[in-house]
Amino acid sequence: MKQYLKHHEWQIIEEGLNPHYNKISESVFSLGNGRMGQRATFEEDYSGETHQGSYVAGVYYPDKTRVGWWKNGYPEYFAKVLNAPSWIEIRIKIGDQVLDLAKCNVESFTRVLDMKQGLLHRVFTATLPDGKKVRVDSKRFCSMADGEIGAIRYEITAQNFDAPISITLPVDADVVNKDSNYDEKFWEEVHKEAEVGQALVTAQTKKTLFHVCTGIQYVLEQNGKRIEAKATVNLREKYADNVVTTELKQGSPLVIYKYAAILSSENHPKDKLVAHAKAKLKEAVAAGFDQLFANHTRVWAHKWEECDITIEGDVAAQQGIRFNIFQLTQTYTGEDERLNIGPKGFTGEKYGGSTYWDTEAYCLPFFLSTAEPKVARNLLVYRYKHLGKAIENAKKLGFKDGAAFYPFVTMNGEECHNEWEITFEEIHRTSAMAYAMRDYIDYTGDKDYLAEYGLEVLIGIARFWNQRVNWSDEKSKFVILGVTGPNEYENNVNNNWYTNYLGAWTLRFATQAVEFVKTAHPKRYAEIVAKTNFNDKPEMDRWKHIVENMYYPYDPKRKVILQQDGFLDKEIIRVKDLKAEDRPLNQKWSWDRILRSCFIKQADVLQGIYLFEDDFDTETIRRNFDFYEPMTVHESSLSPCVHVILASKIGYKEQAYEFYLRTARLDLDDYNNDTEEGCHITSMAGTWMSLVKGFGGMRVRNGQLHFNPFIPDQWKSYSFRLEFRDRVIKVKVGSGGKVETKLEHGDPLEVIMNGSPIQLS
Amino acid sequence: MKQYLKHHEWQIIEEGLNPHYNKISESVFSLGNGRMGQRATFEEDYSGETHQGSYVAGVYYPDKTRVGWWKNGYPEYFAKVLNAPSWIEIRIKIGDQVLDLAKCNVESFTRVLDMKQGLLHRVFTATLPDGKKVRVDSKRFCSMADGEIGAIRYEITAQNFDAPISITLPVDADVVNKDSNYDEKFWEEVHKEAEVGQALVTAQTKKTLFHVCTGIQYVLEQNGKRIEAKATVNLREKYADNVVTTELKQGSPLVIYKYAAILSSENHPKDKLVAHAKAKLKEAVAAGFDQLFANHTRVWAHKWEECDITIEGDVAAQQGIRFNIFQLTQTYTGEDERLNIGPKGFTGEKYGGSTYWDTEAYCLPFFLSTAEPKVARNLLVYRYKHLGKAIENAKKLGFKDGAAFYPFVTMNGEECHNEWEITFEEIHRTSAMAYAMRDYIDYTGDKDYLAEYGLEVLIGIARFWNQRVNWSDEKSKFVILGVTGPNEYENNVNNNWYTNYLGAWTLRFATQAVEFVKTAHPKRYAEIVAKTNFNDKPEMDRWKHIVENMYYPYDPKRKVILQQDGFLDKEIIRVKDLKAEDRPLNQKWSWDRILRSCFIKQADVLQGIYLFEDDFDTETIRRNFDFYEPMTVHESSLSPCVHVILASKIGYKEQAYEFYLRTARLDLDDYNNDTEEGCHITSMAGTWMSLVKGFGGMRVRNGQLHFNPFIPDQWKSYSFRLEFRDRVIKVKVGSGGKVETKLEHGDPLEVIMNGSPIQLS
Repeated sequence: MKQYLKHHEWQIIEEGLNPHYNKISESVFSLGNGRMGQRATFEEDYSGETHQGSYVAGVYYPDKTRVGWWKNGYPEYFAKVLNAPSWIEIRIKIGDQVLDLAKCNVESFTRVLDMKQGLLHRVFTATLPDGKKVRVDSKRFCSMADGEIGAIRYEITAQNFDAPISITLPVDADVVNKDSNYDEKFWEEVHKEAEVGQALVTAQTKKTLFHVCTGIQYVLEQNGKRIEAKATVNLREKYADNVVTTELKQGSPLVIYKYAAILSSENHPKDKLVAHAKAKLKEAVAAGFDQLFANHTRVWAHKWEECDITIEGDVAAQQGIRFNIFQLTQTYTGEDERLNIGPKGFTGEKYGGSTYWDTEAYCLPFFLSTAEPKVARNLLVYRYKHLGKAIENAKKLGFKDGAAFYPFVTMNGEECHNEWEITFEEIHRTSAMAYAMRDYIDYTGDKDYLAEYGLEVLIGIARFWNQRVNWSDEKSKFVILGVTGPNEYENNVNNNWYTNYLGAWTLRFATQAVEFVKTAHPKRYAEIVAKTNFNDKPEMDRWKHIVENMYYPYDPKRKVILQQDGFLDKEIIRVKDLKAEDRPLNQKWSWDRILRSCFIKQADVLQGIYLFEDDFDTETIRRNFDFYEPMTVHESSLSPCVHVILASKIGYKEQAYEFYLRTARLDLDDYNNDTEEGCHITSMAGTWMSLVKGFGGMRVRNGQLHFNPFIPDQWKSYSFRLEFRDRVIKVKVGSGGKVETKLEHGDPLEVIMNGSPIQLS
Repeated sequence: MKQYLKHHEWQIIEEGLNPHYNKISESVFSLGNGRMGQRATFEEDYSGETHQGSYVAGVYYPDKTRVGWWKNGYPEYFAKVLNAPSWIEIRIKIGDQVLDLAKCNVESFTRVLDMKQGLLHRVFTATLPDGKKVRVDSKRFCSMADGEIGAIRYEITAQNFDAPISITLPVDADVVNKDSNYDEKFWEEVHKEAEVGQALVTAQTKKTLFHVCTGIQYVLEQNGKRIEAKATVNLREKYADNVVTTELKQGSPLVIYKYAAILSSENHPKDKLVAHAKAKLKEAVAAGFDQLFANHTRVWAHKWEECDITIEGDVAAQQGIRFNIFQLTQTYTGEDERLNIGPKGFTGEKYGGSTYWDTEAYCLPFFLSTAEPKVARNLLVYRYKHLGKAIENAKKLGFKDGAAFYPFVTMNGEECHNEWEITFEEIHRTSAMAYAMRDYIDYTGDKDYLAEYGLEVLIGIARFWNQRVNWSDEKSKFVILGVTGPNEYENNVNNNWYTNYLGAWTLRFATQAVEFVKTAHPKRYAEIVAKTNFNDKPEMDRWKHIVENMYYPYDPKRKVILQQDGFLDKEIIRVKDLKAEDRPLNQKWSWDRILRSCFIKQADVLQGIYLFEDDFDTETIRRNFDFYEPMTVHESSLSPCVHVILASKIGYKEQAYEFYLRTARLDLDDYNNDTEEGCHITSMAGTWMSLVKGFGGMRVRNGQLHFNPFIPDQWKSYSFRLEFRDRVIKVKVGSGGKVETKLEHGDPLEVIMNGSPIQLS
C-alpha cells in the first residue's frame, strides 16, 4: 500500500516527480474515451522507468500462446491488448540538450488528473544538465465528444536563457508490447506520409489485419500568437514526423498544440482511413484546442450528472468513488455493441482479452443504474453475438447438441485462456450470462429481451449444465465434478456449492424463459425452436429432474453451506492468525499450499449468497459470513465489494466501511502492488455497487426499487443517483441515517424505503 | 500401432525405405554405450523427415522455462537433454550430385539393428537423379568397450559408372535442439582445428559450461587397400571437416572408416580435452574398425550372458524382450554414479531431465537382478547426493526442519518440471527413494546401506510426510489433501489411497531404519543425529501417531480400496464401452473431461497393491484388479507391466500375456504413436519385470528367492537369469509349466518354488 497521491474531491494529484512510482502514476492518470486511451506517459523524452501504452478499442492481436505443457482443447492464441501507434510524443531539444526529466533537476513537478473535466495536466520546472531552466505546462485529453480525437497543449518557457529549440512531433507505429510472448512486434506499415505541419502513419496488425491510421497536426504559438517555424519532415519504417526548429526566448512561452486523429478500420473502410483521418485533423485544427476541450467537458458534465456519487466528510472516500466512476466511464461508453470492458481498460496491456465474467457480474449493475438501458443491453447483445463461438467452444471440449460454454477470456467469442483449471473448469462463468439477463430484466422490466436474444443463449447454457452434471450412485444426487469456483484458490474440486447452485438456478431460469417466450411470443418461439432444435418437453423434463435432485454440500453441525466436498478436511485457520510475511499468499506460498489451505481468494459461497440473497434469511447469511469471511484473503480485486454488500445487509457496519475503502482506493493506494500494470477497471464497478447496494441497500424486487440505507460513522452524508425505468432518482443519506429521496425526472413512483412504501413525485 | 518391422530373434529389421516412419526408425535403431548415444540417422545427406540426435551423458542445458501462467515455487529452468555435436556425417557427392535418399530411386534398402552385437547396419542401392547407381553398405557402433569411441565403416560402390566422388567428413557443433523453448542454440565454440585426415571441435554449452570435444579421423580403402586421397580442410563457426576427393570406379568398392572420439569435461580436465581426444583417435585408428568392433562385441556378449531372456515359440515376444534389454543396457551401464536413466535414454530429446521416479520404481529391479549390486547401489547413492537439493526444494514450497522433497524431474537434484499438479502435488515420488532402499536391501541383504547413506535420506523424507499430512477434525484422522497419485488422470485430489499408504509406510520404514542404525551402528547414528538435528523420540512418536491414525478411503459395499475421496461420485464406465474415436483419451479429450471421468492412466491403487503385495490376500487383490483394471486405459508406458505382474499373481493368464505384448513391443510397434520422439527407455525395465516377476513369479521374501512361474499358452519355453547374492541362477520354464532351475555360479542356495523349498547347487 502506497499513499503518495494527495486527497482531493475532484482531482488526483501527484506532487514531486516519483521515478519509482512513475509506472503506477502512468496507470492511475490514464485517459480514455471509450474508443481509445492512453497511459499518462510524458510527451517529452523520458529515460527513466516507464511503460508506454496507447490503445485503440477492439484492436487486438492473437499472440501465439505460451504454455509449458499443452493440454488437448487449449486455444492456440492469447488475444493481446495491443499497444497502438503512439501520438503523444513532443520531443524537446534545447541547443543540443534533450529535455529528459530523468536527467534534469526537476522542481515543482505536479501531475493532476482532473476527473471533472477529463484532463491530464502536468507542470514542472526542469534544469537541464547545462543549467538551462525551462518551465513546462502540458495539458491533454482524449475527446469524449469525438472518440477519434486527442489533443495536447504543451507550453514551454525558457527561464534563464535564449536558445534554439527543436521539437519533434512524431507518429510512431514502431511500438512494442511488453506482454508479447515471444518478443515479437505486432504492427506492420501500410502507409505513411508527412508534410510540413502534418504526419500520418497507417499500420496494420499482423494476422488480424486491423488498420489504424494515426495522424497528427500541430500549431505553434508564441506570446499568444500563431507562428510559423521551420520544419523538416522525416519518414522511417512505421514512423513519420515533423521536426520544428525555432528560438526559445527567455520568459516568452512557446505553445505547441498537437492534435491527433486515431481512426481504425473497425469504423472506416480501409481505403478511406487516410482521407478520413486528414478530414478529422482539419476539423480539429479548425476548432482549436479550447473549442475541442469545451465539447469534451460538456460530455463529461453530462456523464457526471448521470453517475456522480458524493460523499461529505471523507475526502479519501469521495476521491476513491469518483476515480472509480471516472475510469469506468472513460473505458466503456456503451455506444458500440462490439466492445466490452477489459480488466485493465485503457490503462495497461496486462491480462489480454477484453471480456471476462467481470462484465456481467460486476459491471452490468453499474451501467444499468447510471446509463440508458441500451448500454446494458448492448453488453448482453455482445454475448448473444458470441453464442455460435460458445457452442463451438463447448464442442471442442466434448459437449454436443448446441451446448454453449462461454469463454473465460475472450476478444471475439473464442477462448484465449490456457490454464486447464480455469479455462476448462471455472465453468460458473457461463451462467454469468444468464444471471446478467435476470439482472437486466429485473431492473429494466424489458422481459421481451428473452424473445429477441435471451432465450437462444439460455437454451445453449442450460444444455451445457445438463451435460456437465452427472448422476452419483453414491449420493443418489446429481453432482458436478472437477470445477473451479469463483474462489480460484481451489482447483478441480467436486461440488462447489456456488457452481451447483448457479447451474441449477440456470436450468430453472431457462425453463421460465421458455414458458414466457412460448406464451408471449409464440411466433418467435417457433423460430427459436427450429433454430436450436429445441425439444422442449424432454429437455425441460430432464432439467427439472436435475434441479430437483441437485446435490448441495452442507455442514449440519455448523449449519453452514460447504464451499465444496471435503472442505472440512482442511485445517480451519483464520486470516488474522497468518503471519505478516505470509501475505499476500499468492506471492508467498506455492500453489499447492494455497490449494490445500482453507484460505479463500474471493467470495465464493458468499458470492452465491450475494447473487441469490432472497433465498436466504439474514441469520443464514450471517452464519455463512461469520464462517467464510475470516478465511478470506481478498486477493482478488473483486472480493471486497461483495463483502461490503453482505456486511451492510447483516449490519456489520464497521467491516463494511473497511471493505469499502479497500475497493474504492485499490489503485489510488496500490493495495495489491500491481497498479503499475494498469488499473483494476472491472472491479471499479464493484466499488459503485458497494456504495449503492451496500450502504444504500438498493435492490430491485418485483420491479420495485428498495432501499435500506445506513451511513458509515466517518461520513456526514452521501448521495447517489439512479436511472430506473425512465425516472431519475436521487438518494441522499445524511448523518443519523436520515434519507432524502428525490425524483429528478419521470413519472411518480413508489419505492420501498426500509421496508415501507414511499411515493416519489 | 504400426507393424512395419520384421520379427527376428536378435535383430530389428526394416526392409525398404519408409520415409513416413523414418523418425520412428531413427529412435528404434538408436545406439548407445552408457556414455553417449546416437539416433539412427543416416551418414549421408537426407532432406526427408529426420530428427538428428547425438547425445553425451550428463551434458545438459538449463533452458529458460516456458510457462503460460507462473506459479510461485516454479523452477526457472527446464533441463534439456542436449543434441550434442555431430560426428556421424559422411556426405557424398558424385560428380555434382549429392547422395540424398530423399531424392534418389532407392532399391533394396535394409536397416538392421543387430542387438547381439550392438551394430547398426544399412544396405541400399540408390539411383541418383542423373542415373548413376551406387550401392552402400554402412555399419556403425558406439563402443561398449570404450564409451568415448564411435566408429563407422561406410562402403560405397559404383554400379554403372566411373566418376569423381567427394566425401565430406565433418564434426559439426552447430546443431539445434528441436525441443528448445525459444529456438535458441545451446552450444558455443571453444576450439576447432583440422588437418588432412583429422578434424576436431570443442564446444561448450551456454550457462552450464560443459565442454565436449568431438574429434574425427578417417581412413580410406579401395579394393581392400588403404589409399591416400586428396583432401581439403574447412573451418567454419563451430565446424571443421575434411573434404576428400577421389575417383569411384565401377564395381570397385570404396570404404571410408570414420572414427570418432567424444570426450566431455565431466571426465577430463577442460584443458586436456583436445590432447586426450587426439590420443583416443590415434588409438582407435591404430586398432582399426575390426579390432574395435571385436572389443565391443566382447562386452555385449558378456552383457547378454548376464541379462538375456529367451522365449521359444514366439518370435515377436522374443524380439520384444531383447529389444527392451538392449536399449536399457546401452542407456545405463551403472559405472558412473553421477548418471541416471533418462526416460528417452539416447534416443530423443523429449521430456528433458534425466531422472524420474521411473528409475526407482521400474529400473532398479532390473539392474538389481542383472548386474552386480554396485550398479543398483549407484542409483541409490545418486539420490543420496541430491539430498541437500531435495531439502532446498521442500523449503521453497514452505516445508522446514530438513524435510526432503525429491523433484519430479531433475538433472542435478533441482526440480525442472513446471506443472503445479505434478511438480508440487505428485508427492508420492519422494517415497520412491525409500521404497527403492527397501527393494535394494531385500534383494542384496546390504542393510548397512542404511547406515552409510540411507537413513539420512529417510529422515528427510519422513519429515516431509510428517508436515504434509494434516489432521481432519471431520474424519478424526490424518489426511493428505491436494495430491496427484500415479494415475495422472486425476489432479489435486484428497486422500489418494496410494499416496496415503506409501506415506504411512515410509514413516514406519524410517522408524525401523532408525532403530537398526541406532543399534547396529551407534557411532554413525550419533553422526547422523548431529548432522540432521534429529530429535528421535518426539519425531518418531509423532510418526507413529500419524501411522496409527492415517485415513484410507475404502468402499465397504464393494470391499475395494478407493483411489481417492469422492471416487464413487463418478460415473463408473468400462474402457471397453468407450468408442474407438475416443482413444487415446489424452489425444481426444480435453483435460477436464479426463479428470472427471473414472478412467485411469496407469496403475494407482494397483500400483500400491503391487508394491505392498504381501499386505493383501489374493481375494483382495483380485477384487481391486477387477474393479480398477476395466477402467484403466494404460496410456502411460509404465502401466501394462504392473498389470502383467498382478494378473499373473491372480491367475489371469490371458490378460497377463496381452499386457506383456503391449509393454514388450511398445516402441517396436509404436503403440502410443510417439516413438518418433524417442523410445520409452524406463518402462523397458517394466517389460523385464513383467516376465521375471509376472510370468516367473519371482519375489524376494526374508532374503529368499521365491518363484511361482507359469507359461503363456503361446510359448514353448522361456528362461531368465538372475544375479542374486553372489550367485547366478537360471530359470527355464517349459510347456506345461515345467521348471528347470540351475545354479550357474556361487554357493548352494535354497529357493522357494511354488511355495516349496528346493535346493540349488
